[in-house]
Amino acid sequence: MVKKAPRRTAERILTSALQLFNRFGEPNVATTLIASDMGISPGNLFYHYPSKETLVNTLFDAYQAEMLHLLPAAQDVRDMEDTWFFMHSLFELVWRYRFMYRDLNDLLSKNRHVESQVKDILDKKAHAFQTLLGKLSQADALVQTESERGYCATHMVVMLTWWLSYAYVRNPRHALEDDSAEHNVLNGAQQVLGLLLPYLKPQPKAQLMGLLTVYQAPL
Amino acid sequence: MVKKAPRRTAERILTSALQLFNRFGEPNVATTLIASDMGISPGNLFYHYPSKETLVNTLFDAYQAEMLHLLPAAQDVRDMEDTWFFMHSLFELVWRYRFMYRDLNDLLSKNRHVESQVKDILDKKAHAFQTLLGKLSQADALVQTESERGYCATHMVVMLTWWLSYAYVRNPRHALEDDSAEHNVLNGAQQVLGLLLPYLKPQPKAQLMGLLTVYQAPL
Repeated sequence: MVKKAPRRTAERILTSALQLFNRFGEPNVATTLIASDMGISPGNLFYHYPSKETLVNTLFDAYQAEMLHLLPAAQDVRDMEDTWFFMHSLFELVWRYRFMYRDLNDLLSKNRHVESQVKDILDKKAHAFQTLLGKLSQADALVQTESERGYCATHMVVMLTWWLSYAYVRNPRHALEDDSAEHNVLNGAQQVLGLLLPYLKPQPKAQLMGLLTVYQAPL
Repeated sequence: MVKKAPRRTAERILTSALQLFNRFGEPNVATTLIASDMGISPGNLFYHYPSKETLVNTLFDAYQAEMLHLLPAAQDVRDMEDTWFFMHSLFELVWRYRFMYRDLNDLLSKNRHVESQVKDILDKKAHAFQTLLGKLSQADALVQTESERGYCATHMVVMLTWWLSYAYVRNPRHALEDDSAEHNVLNGAQQVLGLLLPYLKPQPKAQLMGLLTVYQAPL
């Protein structure tokens, strides 16, 4: 049998941990469960990740890097299709790392690394949404005052960040399972975009309503 | 020394538990801490509440009763002042029981009583907001299509329910402390009411902007 390179194992541990955290919630998954799920010894896991915290931090850093890579795309938004696609991509990312969103406050209270970074991510989300709203206004698709833009960007951040919590409360035994992915991603994008409706001019509004109907979440 | 009636002690335990849960988070407060904080024996506390779950459930039931008492006031809303007052009262209630909002998902995953009731409360919140939007529309203060009303009511539920989580993420070491009460209650009411702005007719919109300025959250 060929011995696997350490890097390969470290990556497999991350994949397995992410899957188990997403499925059962991070507070309910011990590192021993991750090791036994992968068929490796706890000592082998410990060699790569000496604590659950290092594992959580590595996953968090990967999430943060993807989010910071995605958010600047807000400045390329020109029309409702771009807007829809941008929001859908954001929700796909949130879905892939949903364990963090499920127990965010608990995670913050235990983990200083996450605590210090999450606030920064929220600020960058708000900044990206301000940019997006500015671009749509430049493209003459949307009309809002400066104070409305501020409110709207904050509302978008809260909806993006806590939509899955809402879905979870409404259906705790099913909402975060793998087969709810499409439903939650589409539904989440739809709800955030619903915030734009009252600000849109008639033509882009009709266009957005059309997109929301075409990409309706399956029941 | 006069012996206190059992009912009196049971109530004092609830007050003390609520205070400690709000301050440190329910997962971080053991019943022994509550007993020592009150200067009673763990056995005395156990006599009134044989588990932390019964304590959480009693607090949850009190919260639920207050919420279900408050929500029907939505049908008496006639103008922006009523709307502001209604939203402020909702946020005061949320603030008093903030421990539930802070760790809602974790609480749900451990407690079947809470799990079964919280969904119902969310539905009743959504129903109350639909009623409120209908009343404002009847009073000719607001214009929205039926689908916009549906989105708007959902957005209001998510903002009401997760606004404190947002405040907590932005300032985990301070946001939920007693001296942040006024700031958070006013700020929360303001953000939910911000959702109405784009739908309001000019006069009520100016009125709401005025109320939001008068009752601005202190920094």
